[in-house]
Amino acid sequence: MKKFLRIRRQLIVMAICTVILAVFGAHMGFAQDAEAVPTMDDIVSIRIGIDTSWVLLTGFLVFFMQLGFAVLETGMIRQTGAVNGLLENFLEAGIGAVAWWVVGFGLAFGMDNGSGLFGTTLFAPGFDTADTIYYGNISVLTMFFFQFAFAATASTITTGAMAERTDFIGNVIYTVIVIIFIYPIVVHWVWGGGWLFQQGFFDFAGSNVVHTVGGVIALVGAWMLGPRKGKVWGKAIPPHNLGLALIGTMILWFGWYGFNPGSTLGAVGVTGTIGIVVLNTTLGAGGGTISAMFFQYFRTGKWDLAATLNGSLAGLVAVTGGCAFISPVSAIIIGLVGGILLLLWGDLLEKIKVDDAVGASSVHLACGVWGILAIGLFAEPSLTPFAANVKAGFGGILVGGGSIDILITQFIGSAATIVWTGVTSFIMFAALKAIGHLRVNSKAETDGNFIDNYEHGQSVWPDVLPLPGDEPVGVPVRSGSAAPAAGD
Amino acid sequence: MKKFLRIRRQLIVMAICTVILAVFGAHMGFAQDAEAVPTMDDIVSIRIGIDTSWVLLTGFLVFFMQLGFAVLETGMIRQTGAVNGLLENFLEAGIGAVAWWVVGFGLAFGMDNGSGLFGTTLFAPGFDTADTIYYGNISVLTMFFFQFAFAATASTITTGAMAERTDFIGNVIYTVIVIIFIYPIVVHWVWGGGWLFQQGFFDFAGSNVVHTVGGVIALVGAWMLGPRKGKVWGKAIPPHNLGLALIGTMILWFGWYGFNPGSTLGAVGVTGTIGIVVLNTTLGAGGGTISAMFFQYFRTGKWDLAATLNGSLAGLVAVTGGCAFISPVSAIIIGLVGGILLLLWGDLLEKIKVDDAVGASSVHLACGVWGILAIGLFAEPSLTPFAANVKAGFGGILVGGGSIDILITQFIGSAATIVWTGVTSFIMFAALKAIGHLRVNSKAETDGNFIDNYEHGQSVWPDVLPLPGDEPVGVPVRSGSAAPAAGD
Amino acid sequence: MKKFLRIRRQLIVMAICTVILAVFGAHMGFAQDAEAVPTMDDIVSIRIGIDTSWVLLTGFLVFFMQLGFAVLETGMIRQTGAVNGLLENFLEAGIGAVAWWVVGFGLAFGMDNGSGLFGTTLFAPGFDTADTIYYGNISVLTMFFFQFAFAATASTITTGAMAERTDFIGNVIYTVIVIIFIYPIVVHWVWGGGWLFQQGFFDFAGSNVVHTVGGVIALVGAWMLGPRKGKVWGKAIPPHNLGLALIGTMILWFGWYGFNPGSTLGAVGVTGTIGIVVLNTTLGAGGGTISAMFFQYFRTGKWDLAATLNGSLAGLVAVTGGCAFISPVSAIIIGLVGGILLLLWGDLLEKIKVDDAVGASSVHLACGVWGILAIGLFAEPSLTPFAANVKAGFGGILVGGGSIDILITQFIGSAATIVWTGVTSFIMFAALKAIGHLRVNSKAETDGNFIDNYEHGQSVWPDVLPLPGDEPVGVPVRSGSAAPAAGD
Repeated sequence: MKKFLRIRRQLIVMAICTVILAVFGAHMGFAQDAEAVPTMDDIVSIRIGIDTSWVLLTGFLVFFMQLGFAVLETGMIRQTGAVNGLLENFLEAGIGAVAWWVVGFGLAFGMDNGSGLFGTTLFAPGFDTADTIYYGNISVLTMFFFQFAFAATASTITTGAMAERTDFIGNVIYTVIVIIFIYPIVVHWVWGGGWLFQQGFFDFAGSNVVHTVGGVIALVGAWMLGPRKGKVWGKAIPPHNLGLALIGTMILWFGWYGFNPGSTLGAVGVTGTIGIVVLNTTLGAGGGTISAMFFQYFRTGKWDLAATLNGSLAGLVAVTGGCAFISPVSAIIIGLVGGILLLLWGDLLEKIKVDDAVGASSVHLACGVWGILAIGLFAEPSLTPFAANVKAGFGGILVGGGSIDILITQFIGSAATIVWTGVTSFIMFAALKAIGHLRVNSKAETDGNFIDNYEHGQSVWPDVLPLPGDEPVGVPVRSGSAAPAAGD
Repeated sequence: MKKFLRIRRQLIVMAICTVILAVFGAHMGFAQDAEAVPTMDDIVSIRIGIDTSWVLLTGFLVFFMQLGFAVLETGMIRQTGAVNGLLENFLEAGIGAVAWWVVGFGLAFGMDNGSGLFGTTLFAPGFDTADTIYYGNISVLTMFFFQFAFAATASTITTGAMAERTDFIGNVIYTVIVIIFIYPIVVHWVWGGGWLFQQGFFDFAGSNVVHTVGGVIALVGAWMLGPRKGKVWGKAIPPHNLGLALIGTMILWFGWYGFNPGSTLGAVGVTGTIGIVVLNTTLGAGGGTISAMFFQYFRTGKWDLAATLNGSLAGLVAVTGGCAFISPVSAIIIGLVGGILLLLWGDLLEKIKVDDAVGASSVHLACGVWGILAIGLFAEPSLTPFAANVKAGFGGILVGGGSIDILITQFIGSAATIVWTGVTSFIMFAALKAIGHLRVNSKAETDGNFIDNYEHGQSVWPDVLPLPGDEPVGVPVRSGSAAPAAGD
Repeated sequence: MKKFLRIRRQLIVMAICTVILAVFGAHMGFAQDAEAVPTMDDIVSIRIGIDTSWVLLTGFLVFFMQLGFAVLETGMIRQTGAVNGLLENFLEAGIGAVAWWVVGFGLAFGMDNGSGLFGTTLFAPGFDTADTIYYGNISVLTMFFFQFAFAATASTITTGAMAERTDFIGNVIYTVIVIIFIYPIVVHWVWGGGWLFQQGFFDFAGSNVVHTVGGVIALVGAWMLGPRKGKVWGKAIPPHNLGLALIGTMILWFGWYGFNPGSTLGAVGVTGTIGIVVLNTTLGAGGGTISAMFFQYFRTGKWDLAATLNGSLAGLVAVTGGCAFISPVSAIIIGLVGGILLLLWGDLLEKIKVDDAVGASSVHLACGVWGILAIGLFAEPSLTPFAANVKAGFGGILVGGGSIDILITQFIGSAATIVWTGVTSFIMFAALKAIGHLRVNSKAETDGNFIDNYEHGQSVWPDVLPLPGDEPVGVPVRSGSAAPAAGD
């Protein structure tokens, strides 16, 4: 018995030693290879790596939309204002970068002072914030860049409506005001934790924040400027270069795959939402393309390229707010309605005599508001929790399990945005008018002169449109040649 | 002794307690920090995050190729059909999105009914599939988008060959038929687990599935339409805008870095293959560029930009099928041959009197078939296992350890694709001809009129090409100015 | 007591068994599910996946810059040399790919023979290197592609300065020499572990390696070629297409978000640096845009689009070398100075009578050198450790804690690069001149002829600029039509 006990004890000890060795031996193994077992630090640094890559790469696509806006606008207007259009759009990136860094970003995404109206920190963020997490796994500086690309977009929308006749200095001034004041306030309300976020307002990627804001400023500006010289009400001035217009539109659609999917602000753990967003973005664009093309054909008997291009953008703008919260069928419906709304809004502009040169308010305001309200109609109760606000789990009024709650909040948010942006932009443009910097100097609009010559001393295609007094450039002198662009 | 035993027992108990504490203490530590040790769930969600990011971002690049095709085609044709060309290409994205979602994707990638011919599930995939894994670490919706971009590409190839003379309604109808029927069937055969996959057919990124299919439809369409008005056999109609042509080509090459590398359908664990694919894609493009430029110089004494641009695409198309399975030297050879084949095929078209307006069949059919057969020549036994089919580990006939097996299957697959696509597209175009919607109304081709005016009521550059009866647009009226584009 | 002991022993045994079972049971669980607990292999393959994705996707953006250079140059020159400009830029990608693969990459990044002057391995890397790690987590082939895109950039800078008058065969020859010899040597000195790296020279993304090298070759080439036909000193030849110029510039800015952020050669663990780089790249571009636009307005009274576009590039070039090492305020200052330097350098060129057609040396040489020296002024001691060289932790002379050490090394490195590149490119161009392949044949510059016709037999817009003897193409013959581009 004693012997048995002893053996048993020895067995016990051996077992214990085995266990101890197993455990500590393993640890000794770890010690030999400093990284032999993954830690949560490894996982966290990987998540930061992926999410930062996703947000920056999609942010680069959003930045690329600046080119889309520049050439879409330029293609849609007359060649006499093309240099002006190109430079104004280009400046949104250059001046916008500095203005957004100094003031705009902090006003939008800094810590709220409790009012729910604006941010009060993160102005001019430095390299000491490079590793400070702002949201999820992305840093302050990653968030800064992604949001810079959005700010430039919101601001650049306006120039299209106001093309061919805005004073250049006035353009520089109002661009800065939009980026450091009008736009970031609305951003804070919705995406910076402000009062609209607290109400449970839904705007996934900016039908309200970006497009309604840009569209309202565009409309107020176009109205206060008056029509372009040569504009006849009820008759559109045709685009001078549909090649540029198509290039611009397809760059915008391409960039939208940064705009919407990147708005998840990460990839790990949210790939399901990203998949939904990509699908709905695609179908919304398709819906707008199809309805605008067929509706215009129904009205005019022509397959209108300009209307079809704008139709795709109408669908994209409309689906942007809700793309994470709706079914694919809803995305198609939202796009289809957007494409028609676009054309009806264009008719309305002719009737109320506002010369929106490229239809910016048709695309961004009409369809932006429609997209925001459509969330109140089509939001899926199983998808709204992604928004993580007080209306998470609520559904749109046309969806099973839905209610009117979302629609009411959406209406309030859209109305508040329109009022804020309308009033501030009216004051801004009125002040510019008062100091003589709203409409371009009348010398730019007299016979034989044009804005590109007056403001810029340049012509976009001097071989086709020489400056007054200049000979065409770069064409070899050949005797006996006919006017080369028209046989006779 | 008893005391000793007691001490020993106490030591044992202490040791046990230590171990228990070590183990459970650690678990208690876990409980304090909910994520203190990584789990496989962490790893899986990270892998899904990376692979989804890779496939979507490369898919966005493939989508961007739509712009490349649109402006390449438009630059290569006459300006009188430019609006038509732009709109037809644009529609592939808009209409294609909805058509592919409703029918095409399910037919291509749905579960086979056992016939190996087509898929029967995944039609109109909803947001409930957003987290359902389709392949590796990517979801149904991620796969949907990547493949949508491919489908739009396959479809848009055709419009170039048929440019300047296709009825617009006919174009809309045949686009839908290609996307919901002709194309997805071939996709299923090869990439959806169908009969060609089961035979061990190799087509990594679509020399057969995308390019041969697009090229056959293009050739059949161009042949059935007859030549463009003004076409003289043996003499090419020069491109109206080589700037647009270059922009289109370089966007396509850029987009090809989505097309080929993204076709790994993931990044984790397959970076070696991605590296090979990127290298071979680059070298194949280089080979085609070089051979087309020098071969054309050898024949004409001119350094031909249009031929060189198409040469790069010829190399890209040819290397697409095998880029994951071949050595870099083989990639260069495949590209070099592709660039020459392109030009010889162009000569052949003039002889058999088929007016392929942009050489779509030269690029996509001739080089697509060449690329598929070239896998049978150059596949490396050490690389073919990536295809994970029954010919994994087999090599091409010109490579050490190779055999004729792959070449036979490649020939069968290519021939079957040509027959299927040729027959179905012939029937489709014949039906359109029967209902009067294949060739544009003859009014569009009478003197003084052109397709852009007839179908679209628009001109791509109204300052250079006004519509009949219109004055030029947007040019300031200046007395005494000469025709600005020709000095005298 | 004995009973108590026995119970106690039994409890002990049970406890032990529990522990053993817990430990081994868990391991049995592992055995059942092969991957139930993450290993370091999982982590490593994930890191490779992320870093490869980041480097390749940013590399694709750098490749896309080829299109930017092509259309920026073409827009900035006269239309008579546009085809030539487009083809020369396009060739950098096609010929460059093969040349870089065969020789350049190995010379730049192969193992040093101890001299610190050039690499001696990695020529023509094969698929066997696909999984060989070159640096951090990226493979030889990933590094190959990223650096190919850089090499093509460096080489393509030169064609702009030499536009409209370079012999085409001469262009092909010198392109190859630059890519296989002149450029990779400097790369090796700085990024391949060569003598400048060993000195602690800082050039994060290529102000010296890419831009100074490209700018010196451009200047030497433009000087040795002599001016373009028709050039009047002191008066710029206006750009023929500012639309193309803007498209090119914005593509370059977009591509720069690959160029600079991708130069971390990974994402995991370096997201802080990436954030700083993205911010500084943006602010540097903004600074250059603003200063060039206002400085030119101050001098001419016009808001000059071409100057503003080049201003953004000046800022980008200048900030490229130091973007990982400086504060955002320094980035703005570097950009602002760059934009002014650009314009002053342009004045200087007119005075020393060098016809740099697009201002390539103003952008890339003047601002490249400025950017390299500026690191010696503005580097932050807390950021320089990222460079991991012997000057890690040192600061610039204008920064707290800084010294003159960095500035001295930067000066030496910049001077050595200028001397090397200047001497080798002078010899190269002199040799081309000797064999009659530097300047285009004088037949291309006689009245009525132009380089696009002579070398290429093509016109970029035959509707506006027909070839000598040709009728305009593609325009419907209409009687009584006025010259369409000028009302009268």
